[in-house]
Amino acid sequence: MDATVARASRPVDLRDVTIGPGFWADRQAVNRDVTIPTVLDWCERTGRLAAFDLSWRPGDAKEPHVFWDSDVAKALEAACYSLTAHPDAALTRRVNALAERIASAQQPDGYLNTHFTVVEPNKRFTNLRDQHELYCAGHLIEAGLAHHAATGSDTLLAAVRRYADYLHDLFVTQGRPGYPGHEEIELALVKLYRATGERRYLELALHFLDARGQGESFFQAEARRRGEDPARHWGDDAYYQAHLPVRQQAGAVGHAVRAMYLYCAMADAAAETGDAALAEACRRLWRDVTQHKMYVTGGIGSTAKGEAFTTDYDLPNATAYAETCAAIGLFLFAQRMLELEPLAEYADVAERALYNGVLAGVSLDGRKFFYVNPLASDGGHRRQEWFGCSCCPPNIARLIASLGGYLYGLGNGVLTVHHYVAGEARVTVAGQAVRLVQQTQYPWKGRVGLTLRLGGQARFALQLRVPGWCRHWTLAVNGQPVRARPVDGYVRLERLWSDRDRVELDLTMPVERMLAHPQVSADLGQVALQRGPLVYCLEQADHRADVRTLALLTAARYEPRWDRRLGGGVVVLTGPGRAYSPAGWKGQLYRPYTQPSLRPARVRAAPYFAWDNRQGGPMRVWRPCL
Amino acid sequence: MDATVARASRPVDLRDVTIGPGFWADRQAVNRDVTIPTVLDWCERTGRLAAFDLSWRPGDAKEPHVFWDSDVAKALEAACYSLTAHPDAALTRRVNALAERIASAQQPDGYLNTHFTVVEPNKRFTNLRDQHELYCAGHLIEAGLAHHAATGSDTLLAAVRRYADYLHDLFVTQGRPGYPGHEEIELALVKLYRATGERRYLELALHFLDARGQGESFFQAEARRRGEDPARHWGDDAYYQAHLPVRQQAGAVGHAVRAMYLYCAMADAAAETGDAALAEACRRLWRDVTQHKMYVTGGIGSTAKGEAFTTDYDLPNATAYAETCAAIGLFLFAQRMLELEPLAEYADVAERALYNGVLAGVSLDGRKFFYVNPLASDGGHRRQEWFGCSCCPPNIARLIASLGGYLYGLGNGVLTVHHYVAGEARVTVAGQAVRLVQQTQYPWKGRVGLTLRLGGQARFALQLRVPGWCRHWTLAVNGQPVRARPVDGYVRLERLWSDRDRVELDLTMPVERMLAHPQVSADLGQVALQRGPLVYCLEQADHRADVRTLALLTAARYEPRWDRRLGGGVVVLTGPGRAYSPAGWKGQLYRPYTQPSLRPARVRAAPYFAWDNRQGGPMRVWRPCL
Repeated sequence: MDATVARASRPVDLRDVTIGPGFWADRQAVNRDVTIPTVLDWCERTGRLAAFDLSWRPGDAKEPHVFWDSDVAKALEAACYSLTAHPDAALTRRVNALAERIASAQQPDGYLNTHFTVVEPNKRFTNLRDQHELYCAGHLIEAGLAHHAATGSDTLLAAVRRYADYLHDLFVTQGRPGYPGHEEIELALVKLYRATGERRYLELALHFLDARGQGESFFQAEARRRGEDPARHWGDDAYYQAHLPVRQQAGAVGHAVRAMYLYCAMADAAAETGDAALAEACRRLWRDVTQHKMYVTGGIGSTAKGEAFTTDYDLPNATAYAETCAAIGLFLFAQRMLELEPLAEYADVAERALYNGVLAGVSLDGRKFFYVNPLASDGGHRRQEWFGCSCCPPNIARLIASLGGYLYGLGNGVLTVHHYVAGEARVTVAGQAVRLVQQTQYPWKGRVGLTLRLGGQARFALQLRVPGWCRHWTLAVNGQPVRARPVDGYVRLERLWSDRDRVELDLTMPVERMLAHPQVSADLGQVALQRGPLVYCLEQADHRADVRTLALLTAARYEPRWDRRLGGGVVVLTGPGRAYSPAGWKGQLYRPYTQPSLRPARVRAAPYFAWDNRQGGPMRVWRPCL
Repeated sequence: MDATVARASRPVDLRDVTIGPGFWADRQAVNRDVTIPTVLDWCERTGRLAAFDLSWRPGDAKEPHVFWDSDVAKALEAACYSLTAHPDAALTRRVNALAERIASAQQPDGYLNTHFTVVEPNKRFTNLRDQHELYCAGHLIEAGLAHHAATGSDTLLAAVRRYADYLHDLFVTQGRPGYPGHEEIELALVKLYRATGERRYLELALHFLDARGQGESFFQAEARRRGEDPARHWGDDAYYQAHLPVRQQAGAVGHAVRAMYLYCAMADAAAETGDAALAEACRRLWRDVTQHKMYVTGGIGSTAKGEAFTTDYDLPNATAYAETCAAIGLFLFAQRMLELEPLAEYADVAERALYNGVLAGVSLDGRKFFYVNPLASDGGHRRQEWFGCSCCPPNIARLIASLGGYLYGLGNGVLTVHHYVAGEARVTVAGQAVRLVQQTQYPWKGRVGLTLRLGGQARFALQLRVPGWCRHWTLAVNGQPVRARPVDGYVRLERLWSDRDRVELDLTMPVERMLAHPQVSADLGQVALQRGPLVYCLEQADHRADVRTLALLTAARYEPRWDRRLGGGVVVLTGPGRAYSPAGWKGQLYRPYTQPSLRPARVRAAPYFAWDNRQGGPMRVWRPCL
């Protein structure tokens, strides 16, 4: 094992990527036109924005949360990312006003948190375990960076830098013990360090990471200082990933979103410091999550009890928690691992989470949200307009708005395409300004055309990911077939590139019946349909027979078909199935075995992300396969 | 439909039935020697008994419950039932002392409840919805009756009669509005009426039943009187079965134990009053429970959320709540329906609940208890010695101790055998004293021998149940085969009986692969093994392969085999199965379909009631069937 690791590539910045036209351009338009304004309006309406005026009192709101600041920060961040690609004067005014409003809540010493300024002013940093104080700080830092990047304004960035300086002074210089119960600030501080070059932000991030889980339990000591019996608290240290020093952690435990944000920061820190032990811990945790604890949708955190990970292969479908934010967290972790080492496996999981577990989090019209993402429903689970604890809506808005920043990687003279999204990337590689124009109808079709635009000629490598779901593919450069063997899931084309060189990648995208590992008890004897990166489900709206009684067939073919009635159009899969018939069961609930009565039934599967956009009704991802 | 109904038969009293030797004699011995003293000790140790001294203060106990009185009452009831069959001077002294101790807590006006005497003396009957005050009263009444029946002592019975008189005065004479949030007193009052002949107890029971769900919500009005906003309460009226007048209720809703106790009282009231509308409501609710909302184990109340019923066919296995008390409640409801009309279907469900969902509630050694009874476990679900809310342990103890009272029915010159349990019943039928001696190794074997002992000859009908699980059976009287067609599941032998007449019933008891209704989504494509009344499960302790990967075979034979190592011996079922192999899955969680790799595996199924009596590990009732 290496003693040190290096960051293999950096993502091409959001500002250097354009998305469109196509699947994601459509989603970004809905996000821009509907979701972001809706989320900002909800923040306004619920008192979340007014909280920053500090004249607000807890009684003004029905259910104020200690982490309201983070909702506002993520909403602002989403709006700023959106502005980067789509200038909009009215939205710019709105974000600038909001940035001012947030910054105005900063205290003379640099502290910036509405709850602990207004509601419990004497309790700053007395309950890092539960009160989300450093979590909110992290989201404010990310918002400050996004606002600066989008508008050039220093208003909020300067404020969050002062706040970060205050925190550095408190936790590093003065040596106050502790680290966050809900991780997030660590990854934000690395971002802040990368954007500003100021090393003490990295230092504070590393401090929080290194202190975590060391020696006697900090959270228990902190609880005793508050006069509480820590043994009576519902969550143990593992719930906060504070049961072991981070380099010794081997299994994903506790609250799934917290875990993901921690692992993101661990990967970031390893990339910055070359800490091989930290990178190895990231790999172990990655394997544990993706080989034992992940739904086929990329959802993670299978139980509502603590929104948490459970045991290996425990992936119940109807009671799946699979919080939208956790799938987002897995996407973010995967992308960071990809920066650390270019294994397509990371991008495969990022893609699985993005197109399924994440994207299901918002309705096709951008107005409603899932917090919880089960893989089976009897019809009672519906998207909502908002939540008391509303972390997911602004989180999905910011991810969709910032997607451009996750598509391409650049490092060591290699330009890598991780994800197939129509649009273009503008980079400088081998000293040459290059525009890489991507044309594709992905995820509906597997054909990807890449055109290079450059002033002169340049020798560099273009790396293309061959998705893990793809078994047959062809590659051509300027019409000439190229035979290449992927290394770690990427094919590498290293040559002297000229303007208008064209690369064609054709990924065969058959309909697959997916199996789960036989120890995934909930899916035994069942299959889930998948085509390309999209996992499919059976919704009642498409069937006369109760979808809960439908089975797929091992021998049948399921054909993709364009259906323009759902959203802006989706590929549905159709083919023959069987319905277990309730005929002859009248008045009986159990009876001795007889060959089940099966009726032929036409099956029509829709993408999982698009479910619950029609009338409510039962839904199933996994189905028996006869 | 009849305008009135009549009670078709009465159970032969516990005091007139002897159990043994055999399956239930063994369980009763463990119940007597271990469970009952253990439960009484726990009541002592936790402060539940001391609470009746009224010197107790809430701070003396860690988690006092408002319904502690009911735990003590049920424990006393269990001990008294046990004494009926097995005199025991030490236990008699203990129950007499306890009866005195309870009675000593009675207030001068007749009121008897420790919580509202000591902790909240000014809040009597101000929160019928949540505080279990009338529920406790009901259990005290049942305890008073059991104590009197077992010992002849009037100490506790007189006290509870005074309490019932007080309640009648308050709710009927003075007209105070209200009825219990947790039903129980209604069935206790009918019992008290039947034992004493005092009509006002029946009147009070009918009053509570008739007031329920009438007009505007009583519980909401009561909450407003306490200054609370009823809309903010977590449970709606349906949770308490108070959403509709009882005669209009058609679906089983809300808390399953409450529902069962209510339905018991409705059946009792219909039997006493001949109220056909009430009987019809009971039948509707019965059908809803047993045709849509019952596990194959007889467990009911599928969700932990409110310990409640959900929607039709929603019977998840791993998250099944299926509280032990709810299965007991279903048994009690079934037995009451059987008194109303002799349909073997009622006895079939009673038996299913008794041998599976109820009996699993206590360990084979009688020391540990399940509150929750899932049909699948990954190994984390284990019996406990006691619970903060410990309704189930004394409830199962009293049911096992009183089982003799549920076996036989007598009415209109017909002696009916509902359940096959070795022992004897002593009755007077057609003016003749008759001893019916039952010899059987049921539930392990289906052969039942019945010998009649009587002084002279007598003409009467003997009715024998042909269990619903039985497809082939033979019947003989004094060695002569008898051909008879069961009516409503009972065969009737009407003749002039002489001393030593012998009836032989041989119930063929094959191993069945049970199917669930195809809309029971959790069980689709799966089977559960059953033999006679016993549902079986696969435990890890009996298998090398992970039981979660095991499948049964449609074509294979599963053979019963006596295994004396488990408990005092049980019949296990063995036969060939297949294990889905994880070979070739290393590092993968999902992959495209290939024919699953199946290894031959020997399956060994143990009775569900006996699970978790060895080392912990995964358990499954339903398995795929290939």
